[in-house]
Amino acid sequence: MLPRFAVVNGPNLNLLGKREPDKYGLQTLNQINTELQNYFEAKAELVFFQSNHEGEIIEFLHSFTGNGLALNLGAYTHTSIAIRDALTYCLSTNSKLGCLAVEVHLSNIHARESFRYKSYISDVSSAVIAGCGALGYRFALEFLMQKSLVQN
Amino acid sequence: MLPRFAVVNGPNLNLLGKREPDKYGLQTLNQINTELQNYFEAKAELVFFQSNHEGEIIEFLHSFTGNGLALNLGAYTHTSIAIRDALTYCLSTNSKLGCLAVEVHLSNIHARESFRYKSYISDVSSAVIAGCGALGYRFALEFLMQKSLVQN
Amino acid sequence: MLPRFAVVNGPNLNLLGKREPDKYGLQTLNQINTELQNYFEAKAELVFFQSNHEGEIIEFLHSFTGNGLALNLGAYTHTSIAIRDALTYCLSTNSKLGCLAVEVHLSNIHARESFRYKSYISDVSSAVIAGCGALGYRFALEFLMQKSLVQN
Amino acid sequence: MLPRFAVVNGPNLNLLGKREPDKYGLQTLNQINTELQNYFEAKAELVFFQSNHEGEIIEFLHSFTGNGLALNLGAYTHTSIAIRDALTYCLSTNSKLGCLAVEVHLSNIHARESFRYKSYISDVSSAVIAGCGALGYRFALEFLMQKSLVQN
Amino acid sequence: MLPRFAVVNGPNLNLLGKREPDKYGLQTLNQINTELQNYFEAKAELVFFQSNHEGEIIEFLHSFTGNGLALNLGAYTHTSIAIRDALTYCLSTNSKLGCLAVEVHLSNIHARESFRYKSYISDVSSAVIAGCGALGYRFALEFLMQKSLVQN
Amino acid sequence: MLPRFAVVNGPNLNLLGKREPDKYGLQTLNQINTELQNYFEAKAELVFFQSNHEGEIIEFLHSFTGNGLALNLGAYTHTSIAIRDALTYCLSTNSKLGCLAVEVHLSNIHARESFRYKSYISDVSSAVIAGCGALGYRFALEFLMQKSLVQN
Amino acid sequence: MLPRFAVVNGPNLNLLGKREPDKYGLQTLNQINTELQNYFEAKAELVFFQSNHEGEIIEFLHSFTGNGLALNLGAYTHTSIAIRDALTYCLSTNSKLGCLAVEVHLSNIHARESFRYKSYISDVSSAVIAGCGALGYRFALEFLMQKSLVQN
Amino acid sequence: MLPRFAVVNGPNLNLLGKREPDKYGLQTLNQINTELQNYFEAKAELVFFQSNHEGEIIEFLHSFTGNGLALNLGAYTHTSIAIRDALTYCLSTNSKLGCLAVEVHLSNIHARESFRYKSYISDVSSAVIAGCGALGYRFALEFLMQKSLVQN
Amino acid sequence: MLPRFAVVNGPNLNLLGKREPDKYGLQTLNQINTELQNYFEAKAELVFFQSNHEGEIIEFLHSFTGNGLALNLGAYTHTSIAIRDALTYCLSTNSKLGCLAVEVHLSNIHARESFRYKSYISDVSSAVIAGCGALGYRFALEFLMQKSLVQN
Amino acid sequence: MLPRFAVVNGPNLNLLGKREPDKYGLQTLNQINTELQNYFEAKAELVFFQSNHEGEIIEFLHSFTGNGLALNLGAYTHTSIAIRDALTYCLSTNSKLGCLAVEVHLSNIHARESFRYKSYISDVSSAVIAGCGALGYRFALEFLMQKSLVQN
Amino acid sequence: MLPRFAVVNGPNLNLLGKREPDKYGLQTLNQINTELQNYFEAKAELVFFQSNHEGEIIEFLHSFTGNGLALNLGAYTHTSIAIRDALTYCLSTNSKLGCLAVEVHLSNIHARESFRYKSYISDVSSAVIAGCGALGYRFALEFLMQKSLVQN
Amino acid sequence: MLPRFAVVNGPNLNLLGKREPDKYGLQTLNQINTELQNYFEAKAELVFFQSNHEGEIIEFLHSFTGNGLALNLGAYTHTSIAIRDALTYCLSTNSKLGCLAVEVHLSNIHARESFRYKSYISDVSSAVIAGCGALGYRFALEFLMQKSLVQN
Repeated sequence: MLPRFAVVNGPNLNLLGKREPDKYGLQTLNQINTELQNYFEAKAELVFFQSNHEGEIIEFLHSFTGNGLALNLGAYTHTSIAIRDALTYCLSTNSKLGCLAVEVHLSNIHARESFRYKSYISDVSSAVIAGCGALGYRFALEFLMQKSLVQN
Repeated sequence: MLPRFAVVNGPNLNLLGKREPDKYGLQTLNQINTELQNYFEAKAELVFFQSNHEGEIIEFLHSFTGNGLALNLGAYTHTSIAIRDALTYCLSTNSKLGCLAVEVHLSNIHARESFRYKSYISDVSSAVIAGCGALGYRFALEFLMQKSLVQN
Repeated sequence: MLPRFAVVNGPNLNLLGKREPDKYGLQTLNQINTELQNYFEAKAELVFFQSNHEGEIIEFLHSFTGNGLALNLGAYTHTSIAIRDALTYCLSTNSKLGCLAVEVHLSNIHARESFRYKSYISDVSSAVIAGCGALGYRFALEFLMQKSLVQN
Repeated sequence: MLPRFAVVNGPNLNLLGKREPDKYGLQTLNQINTELQNYFEAKAELVFFQSNHEGEIIEFLHSFTGNGLALNLGAYTHTSIAIRDALTYCLSTNSKLGCLAVEVHLSNIHARESFRYKSYISDVSSAVIAGCGALGYRFALEFLMQKSLVQN
Repeated sequence: MLPRFAVVNGPNLNLLGKREPDKYGLQTLNQINTELQNYFEAKAELVFFQSNHEGEIIEFLHSFTGNGLALNLGAYTHTSIAIRDALTYCLSTNSKLGCLAVEVHLSNIHARESFRYKSYISDVSSAVIAGCGALGYRFALEFLMQKSLVQN
Repeated sequence: MLPRFAVVNGPNLNLLGKREPDKYGLQTLNQINTELQNYFEAKAELVFFQSNHEGEIIEFLHSFTGNGLALNLGAYTHTSIAIRDALTYCLSTNSKLGCLAVEVHLSNIHARESFRYKSYISDVSSAVIAGCGALGYRFALEFLMQKSLVQN
Repeated sequence: MLPRFAVVNGPNLNLLGKREPDKYGLQTLNQINTELQNYFEAKAELVFFQSNHEGEIIEFLHSFTGNGLALNLGAYTHTSIAIRDALTYCLSTNSKLGCLAVEVHLSNIHARESFRYKSYISDVSSAVIAGCGALGYRFALEFLMQKSLVQN
Repeated sequence: MLPRFAVVNGPNLNLLGKREPDKYGLQTLNQINTELQNYFEAKAELVFFQSNHEGEIIEFLHSFTGNGLALNLGAYTHTSIAIRDALTYCLSTNSKLGCLAVEVHLSNIHARESFRYKSYISDVSSAVIAGCGALGYRFALEFLMQKSLVQN
Repeated sequence: MLPRFAVVNGPNLNLLGKREPDKYGLQTLNQINTELQNYFEAKAELVFFQSNHEGEIIEFLHSFTGNGLALNLGAYTHTSIAIRDALTYCLSTNSKLGCLAVEVHLSNIHARESFRYKSYISDVSSAVIAGCGALGYRFALEFLMQKSLVQN
Repeated sequence: MLPRFAVVNGPNLNLLGKREPDKYGLQTLNQINTELQNYFEAKAELVFFQSNHEGEIIEFLHSFTGNGLALNLGAYTHTSIAIRDALTYCLSTNSKLGCLAVEVHLSNIHARESFRYKSYISDVSSAVIAGCGALGYRFALEFLMQKSLVQN
Repeated sequence: MLPRFAVVNGPNLNLLGKREPDKYGLQTLNQINTELQNYFEAKAELVFFQSNHEGEIIEFLHSFTGNGLALNLGAYTHTSIAIRDALTYCLSTNSKLGCLAVEVHLSNIHARESFRYKSYISDVSSAVIAGCGALGYRFALEFLMQKSLVQN
Repeated sequence: MLPRFAVVNGPNLNLLGKREPDKYGLQTLNQINTELQNYFEAKAELVFFQSNHEGEIIEFLHSFTGNGLALNLGAYTHTSIAIRDALTYCLSTNSKLGCLAVEVHLSNIHARESFRYKSYISDVSSAVIAGCGALGYRFALEFLMQKSLVQN
């Protein structure tokens, strides 16, 4: 059976490709997701989710069952303890499946405003990947895949 | 006429009983609410509300009319000034009814991560009860009941 | 063609006029908006938006096209980096239209609790107007109008 | 055998009922203790202790044997690491009896001066109850009773 | 009788119009003042004062009698407790006249160096207007006018 | 009837005159007290109290009845919230007698280690006198006397 | 020869007696100075100086020759390092005359806004007297007198 | 011509594989490097460097010519401004070659001691990858490769 | 004549040997003291003192005459400025005897909670020994002995 | 044409040579200025200015036209944002003349009280010279001269 | 077999005995080491190491095998996370030998500049000995010896 | 005999002239040193030293004998307490020769990143010269020369 991973995107990430393409790339979120789908086709089952609503992300995490999460929570990374709590629950519920989280950021948040240095999820994540653009999602999934293989 | 109290639960509290039962107990939120309903049956009218959405909690507080609130806002306790403002409005609107708020937490937040020490509602609440598990709701309602009796 | 401005109100501002009228005035938000509509009738097209939900405000900012925004984000001013990001996107998308933002607060937030001093949008706004009550919206729109005229 | 609990009061609490009765209630500490005694008569053995002297409280904790403590340490809550150390010793000595501590405050210390936010005992206590007036002692003992029953 | 307002400008503001006109506008302080004079001619008596000397501003505030002040104190906003004290005295002396203060800044100080975030007068002012350029003075006077009308 | 004042000295002040006489003077505490007694003989009744024990000072403040206190609490000034609470009680109990507190220090604590800058009693005292040596007690009593005369 | 002392008053203190007489007393600065003059007539030569201008106070301190200074610098206490430097120079120049400084405040600055806790002169002063009203000047001069007698 | 990248390892990383293999993996640094060599064989020229000496790393950066750097500086990440300066020079010298830096950490430093949160190189790096173990080096090189292709 | 040293133990140290023997050792304080007595029998006169009361420790330090002190003040180390003052007096009174203080802690306080990092006595002590268990007392006395010999 | 430089001295610097000559040297400010005049006679036109008044320094900077400024602002360095603003204006007005500022201090302010570490002008100055005594002025002018030569 | 301990000295400690002998003693490091060698001759095998180079100390710790370390890392104590990491590795590698670390300082670092309060190794050491001069090394080794005996 | 001075350069300064010549000048460190050599030829003996290794700089300072040091320690200025200690030793060893240190920086570090504000050597140096480019070295040596002449 293929491992099952979620690619979760938070607020403002539905705008990808439409704005500041020189900064965030020309790809829309759909295109990125399709590319990931193709790349991991035979290797993993991918679930895609995006929302601008904190409560919806919380509820997605309540309902998710699988082996790992690649999370680009946008600005909620820095402000939402409620999502952190939902993530902790999600990881603990799926712990028998070896479920891990990877924090992803398109830009290098460490080179931006100081209020972006604080992350409420990095200490409950296994890895953090920032600044690699859309490649970051692929790296996150490859890492989760490797961890998943090790366990099985 | 019976006093009317709200029991408000915030994000992730819909998960009660389903997860980490050794930590948070085996009771679901429904069971807790039913138990409270039974306990206060002849003494008070209870309104139950739970949401993972900040905006919905704000709007519940806009609409509530009654004599007191037992609030377990989960992680929004630490991050939501908007709910604080809604609570302040709620208390002031219902001030003629002697409406007070009690902040409730299932776990002892003072023994957890430092970002849980900050509460945006404790200074507009009359009391804070943390770490008593589901008993905390009952204590909060008993306190509100006592205050309600003193006034009437 | 008339310039097009948005008047955006955040959480709890739907309560205007209903509560603490001695503090926030007797006018409802609808009345304030109507008054603004009348005042700027021949001079500008106004779009009115209010929400208690962070995600909805984000999505309004994603969809807005126009020449300026008067934003009273209430408590989200102090806590929402996600709205800041949406605003930044909005301003950059509309930059060819000379779109600017003005931060408005009915009360003088600088004379209130210290957690209201932090604003996530003031450094991406062109102006900040606090404490002028409902007049603040008119001032914001006049300022945007003037800037709009200079450009055209 | 009945469970045995201590009700420990710290500095200035011998004044209860004599001063600011509108704030702290009309009951003296003796009356509160008597009421608790009556309430828990058949259910628990209660030990009452009050002192204004840090050293005496330390020595009481050295000597106590039992199943739980309800502690209102007054201002020593915020300044005494020595009492914390004594409490830690006390809890560890009585751990086979399932002994737990509950921190009690008559007023809501979270709504007072900032130097009252720091508590040296809350992270070694199981629960914190603040602002419920004399009811707080009863709640603390009910909680300890419940925990005691679960264990036995 | 017309209400009487002061327009007080602090250090470096005598340079307006002479320098960085793209940033601060082409108008000199005299031109701005004349424009305000014309605008409010039939509606209010305006007193204009500018000084680069902290002590002179203090003494102006000692001597002023009237119904309101629009204050752009430049850098003294951030450093002068003595002017704050003089302003407090001024407001209290003129309190029977309903005298209020409005803090004005030409640029948006919230988007500049962090040492400009601290204002010693904003919490004794009724409103703060920053970033509206010379329009800010007019807004401040309109606000004072409205408040003045309400009272009379 | 003569006004009644307490002169309260805290830890280590029983050593006065015996040590570092070049710094703290040659007078013992008894000699200072005797001198005060003589100076105010016909004008006021003086009560003298010294203790090195926090609890005893608390209990003295519980029992005191009179029109004012001159308090040199030594190092407890900087660490004892419990004495502050006792003092607050004491002042409130004696408020009908116009009882006020004056904080006294022999040395100028503002020129010593930074941990001596914090005082838990200065904001509930009416005046603070530091660095005047034994004269400080007399000044404190003269001030209390004057206040007492004004009231009577 | 009589010792010579300066009584230096800073910004806003020329207003004494004219404003908030219930808080600062009914006496004008002139009346206070006259009273001091009479009190110390045969014992000391007094020099009186008041200015709202930082630079003038600096220059007064440059020119002063004598045995002591009672300084109520008002708000400059908290902000002027330049006056501190001038005072240091003044004390060192007059050190052969045993010249000392006493910091005086009419109100108890320790019970006011936190920005009044910082004093740039207290650590170069010998004593600090706050909250004794106009009596504070007399106490300061008595202290300087006593020190002056000890030396001569 | 193949792009040329450096893989730079700092203090203690020569120990890889020898210690805590359950935490850091069984591979030695040599094995990791060999694996990278094989993986990128036809695609890039790789230069490997490790040192425990701050000065040697500085000098390596002085001498390097190429298109990118994957840097795991170990603890020097958090303490060495000198290496940051050398890296800045290196990037600026090689800027015509489109040279970028990627910060790599084997473990998730955001979940460790707080002194590991500060990085002196992340804001001059293009990306940060932490917690992916040895995979992190490969991801860094893939990212540099992609950037390199875009430019050529 | 033999040098005379005090071994002073603060709050909770009377519990040694009775609790957590795996952590603090099996020896009671009496046994430790006896062992020290035997070890230094011919070399020094030892005075032993233990108290849980801050005031009693202060008074012991007032009364002590001798050549050195080994002080394990337990939690008072971190909170008692009054004991620090008493110690300073003690050291200055006995300075002709070359009296020095050594701060001793059984456990390594630098590896415990952050509120144990602050010591009010370490900067007036000559040496600090932490984490050596009961050996720490012997080391402290050996050090004092050596210093004592050097002087005589 | 010779370059034109200002030598600006702030508060208390008119005292040079008169006080603490062992610390600040025996030269008066006039002597220093004369020496500079002689040294640069054929090379530059020097303008000398000293004031103890913040407002006067501001106005000097408003009026200055030239190629550089050597500024020893004394204590105003640490407190005056208004002078900083005037200096910024001055530099921008004279930017076509290549005008630069050099911050000079006679003593090494980095080795004095911590409140002297903050400088409001160092980040708008080109160079900072502290601790070189009167030589500092000459160095500053030589530096300005060199920069001036490079430009012309 | 004898236990094997390292005595590690960091930067500037090669200067012992040559400089400030009144402060650091007359003994050179060689003499201290020889004395230790003699003292522990029959009881332990001692390895001596000193370096001024951070990288060399790291590499010594990589290579050391034995039962304990007495470490006086001089200033690297306060700045080197890399040495901390090497020490952690060293202790974990030698954990089967019961290897522990003791932090030693010749002077009492707690009574010196505040930047010497931070130690990167004290929380991974078993004990800290500061201010005992060269005796500190002996105490550290005695402590390690005792621990070593307990284990074997 | 000529005075003897060292010109010490730290990490990355061997790159001078090779990089960013518009910022740091076209001169190599050798050329700067040669120029200094020529300038001071008949007046002083100059020793030149540069290293990127903290340990080597420490050891140079151990070995130096002479009358002064001009130190540009680059980034080690902000991080190396070990070099500070070596410098302190060096100055004390050479104190009979009147040896002083001058801290030199090519750029104005006060206008750069905040982590460059902290200097571990400025409070043990006599003067600090920043932002004067290569002229800074000459100024430092002239200052040392002048001091040297005064002493001899």
